[in-house]
Amino acid sequence: MNFPAITLPIPDWLSAFLPSPEQIFDTPESRMALVIDLASHNIRQGTGGPFGAAVFDLDSGRLIAPGVNLVTATCCSVAHAELVALMMAQRLVGNFSLSAAGCNAELTSSTEPCAMCLGALPWAGLRQLSCGARDSDARAVGFDEGDKPPHWHRLLEKRGIRVLRDICRSQAVAVLDQYRLQGGEIYNGRPEC
Amino acid sequence: MNFPAITLPIPDWLSAFLPSPEQIFDTPESRMALVIDLASHNIRQGTGGPFGAAVFDLDSGRLIAPGVNLVTATCCSVAHAELVALMMAQRLVGNFSLSAAGCNAELTSSTEPCAMCLGALPWAGLRQLSCGARDSDARAVGFDEGDKPPHWHRLLEKRGIRVLRDICRSQAVAVLDQYRLQGGEIYNGRPEC
Repeated sequence: MNFPAITLPIPDWLSAFLPSPEQIFDTPESRMALVIDLASHNIRQGTGGPFGAAVFDLDSGRLIAPGVNLVTATCCSVAHAELVALMMAQRLVGNFSLSAAGCNAELTSSTEPCAMCLGALPWAGLRQLSCGARDSDARAVGFDEGDKPPHWHRLLEKRGIRVLRDICRSQAVAVLDQYRLQGGEIYNGRPEC
Repeated sequence: MNFPAITLPIPDWLSAFLPSPEQIFDTPESRMALVIDLASHNIRQGTGGPFGAAVFDLDSGRLIAPGVNLVTATCCSVAHAELVALMMAQRLVGNFSLSAAGCNAELTSSTEPCAMCLGALPWAGLRQLSCGARDSDARAVGFDEGDKPPHWHRLLEKRGIRVLRDICRSQAVAVLDQYRLQGGEIYNGRPEC
């Protein structure tokens, strides 16, 4: 039996959309503005759900890797924005641990992570997570965020990953609302689907 | 800024190792035997950690897709055996939901899922999860399984995903022990790494 490599193509629009590699993102709000823009573009371009993420190096303020939700575009339920950004960042730095590669890495996410993405964070060598919309905001639109342990943000902090919440929350929620208003697909992949 | 596609190459040995596509796996033990063999081969071949997984169609008894842990080989902390198998299966059936693609899909895993893989299960359209070693067995070897919600198996059952535990547990644990004895890398990707 032959099995192909697993490939997640990145949408063509993404590279053109991103700013110069020299741009400095030195505040949580500036980093969040980029990922909210990514989420918004992702639904406008029809390449996936209303979620954007990116990995930044907090020392240099530079973008390491972007991510958008590509579940429907790539037929891959794993392709949430956060995991796309983490996989891309790890590929670019050549290490499965961003801290081992010398990065002081923040994952910025337009919405708080679902149970899968939350579980992925400690394996990636991150130092900080910064979130826009709350998971309750995603649930309000119809997305299932999964079964997260209670006080998940405290558990991350215990693992040495700082958590910033509600960064530009209202702008992040506006993208979720826009998706709902335009009748975007809610793709939870449940058995009854 | 240009960003490449995300690619997880599959080890060369995998296709040669797998049985004929005609082979029927009609018991949990027969399916578990294959994934334990995958885990064992993965450490012998030096392509990753002591974890194997596969997606089977319970109606036909056929293998849909295999997976092995490829974290170190692919520089990707997401490349746990379970997620490799799910991504491969979804690619092969052309749908991010295995149930929507008409599969009565079981994920068989040589060890109970970590928090990330557990969180991924509801998004994949699975009907059943079958596990060999317990997560406590993986912790005993040194692997961090993450912060899983209490009674995680009951939460999966509530979502319509049946859970079988302790299938060939002692054989599954033997592979974990073998990895520890040979001094295999424990790669949790924590910030202090």
